[in-house]
Amino acid sequence: MDTVKAMLDSYPKDLGDLDRARLVACIQACYECTQTCAACADACLSEDMVADLVKCVRTNLDCADICAATGSVLSRHTGYDANLTRAILEACIAACKACGDECERHASMHEHCRVCAESCRRCEQACRDLLDSIGQ
Amino acid sequence: MDTVKAMLDSYPKDLGDLDRARLVACIQACYECTQTCAACADACLSEDMVADLVKCVRTNLDCADICAATGSVLSRHTGYDANLTRAILEACIAACKACGDECERHASMHEHCRVCAESCRRCEQACRDLLDSIGQ
Amino acid sequence: MDTVKAMLDSYPKDLGDLDRARLVACIQACYECTQTCAACADACLSEDMVADLVKCVRTNLDCADICAATGSVLSRHTGYDANLTRAILEACIAACKACGDECERHASMHEHCRVCAESCRRCEQACRDLLDSIGQ
Amino acid sequence: MDTVKAMLDSYPKDLGDLDRARLVACIQACYECTQTCAACADACLSEDMVADLVKCVRTNLDCADICAATGSVLSRHTGYDANLTRAILEACIAACKACGDECERHASMHEHCRVCAESCRRCEQACRDLLDSIGQ
Repeated sequence: MDTVKAMLDSYPKDLGDLDRARLVACIQACYECTQTCAACADACLSEDMVADLVKCVRTNLDCADICAATGSVLSRHTGYDANLTRAILEACIAACKACGDECERHASMHEHCRVCAESCRRCEQACRDLLDSIGQ
Repeated sequence: MDTVKAMLDSYPKDLGDLDRARLVACIQACYECTQTCAACADACLSEDMVADLVKCVRTNLDCADICAATGSVLSRHTGYDANLTRAILEACIAACKACGDECERHASMHEHCRVCAESCRRCEQACRDLLDSIGQ
Repeated sequence: MDTVKAMLDSYPKDLGDLDRARLVACIQACYECTQTCAACADACLSEDMVADLVKCVRTNLDCADICAATGSVLSRHTGYDANLTRAILEACIAACKACGDECERHASMHEHCRVCAESCRRCEQACRDLLDSIGQ
Repeated sequence: MDTVKAMLDSYPKDLGDLDRARLVACIQACYECTQTCAACADACLSEDMVADLVKCVRTNLDCADICAATGSVLSRHTGYDANLTRAILEACIAACKACGDECERHASMHEHCRVCAESCRRCEQACRDLLDSIGQ
């Protein structure tokens, strides 16, 4: 998604002191994690042992929804509201942490959980990095 | 949306000590606010004075995305995670507060902002009521 | 969701010859169906016989996503594009038909599937009614 | 989003005769287009000439919502329904065509519209390629 940077660079107004590299990385991670979580939920549904994976499906779905909302909010800069950005980043960190932990439990048995866990960890870290740079 | 209660009542497992009335009210408020915010963003776009409403459009879009994610998360009970529920409720409260404040500034001039501000206030309160009942 | 009508009535520009009553009914049905499908997917996950319900979960998730997108598109009137409205209504009809059929198969065993099937049928019909009124 | 292919490769059941390369390309294009459209809507809002761009904002928002729903549907394979896949691809083609056309009109003045138009064209083509491979 090289277009994330191209879109940010073409934003017509000042972005203030936002860390552009961290913002680009975080947006990319949010969209990637939205997709891996949607795909992991569906892959879990097709496992023979789906009954053991229902919590994983649920956590995947939550994480997908919250990452998607976070990616959208971070893609907007007009009327920037640091308070709102921090709140949705905190929620995204909680969702990625929960989903990464749950997927990791199944990572040795299911490759889709392993890939998804890594995607959740990257997104969690990207959100933390961006949150750190926003300040209070 | 009377179906919200019907769906909750037909959930096959125990819901723990969640306050059902507050949960139903919060889910309904989240979906209502998703729609009013989407509609208010579009109505603002069609106002002659759209240039004065760009922050309102942006805040509407954020609030719509976050309310939609919150409504989805609250509609799921399998593998309930109080920590994640609290985090998304906090983000939804921040979004509804920001959007309610912004819409209120235009409420005397634009009926859609007045209706939307009220919808945001209801959703913010419903989220606070549910959050209070979840405990720590 | 009485606010759907209030938001439509406060739209500042002309709505052309759109059938307002059908539009309001369709928007309400789309948001209701988004929620029932999200809740039904999760209730299926918590059934002991989840392995028999994986197609139902998948169809629920598709229907929820498509109904949500349709509800958002229908909530916007600025720069109305009949061609796009028709295309998303056709997709929503297909999704609600597929999910209604699948949920109906389980309606006698699972109350959540029965409620969800009815919600899908209502949304499918509301989309057809609106589509009929748009013309070619 | 190299993870799209990794997730597809780890899907535990047979994918039938779906063209995997086209499916991966289409999922990636849908998520990319979701982001560029969200960002372009916001960039348009921050232009001094926002009043000339309100149709572009609206079309961007529709395209973002429909691409997001399409990307989610295409990320699921359990209980595959060719009829539903075709319907959402048709809607996505219509949305990307409308948004690509509208953004192209402003491409010489606004770099974000130029980048977004290209993203819409790629997504439209990826959807057509996948649709062609699905058959009737």
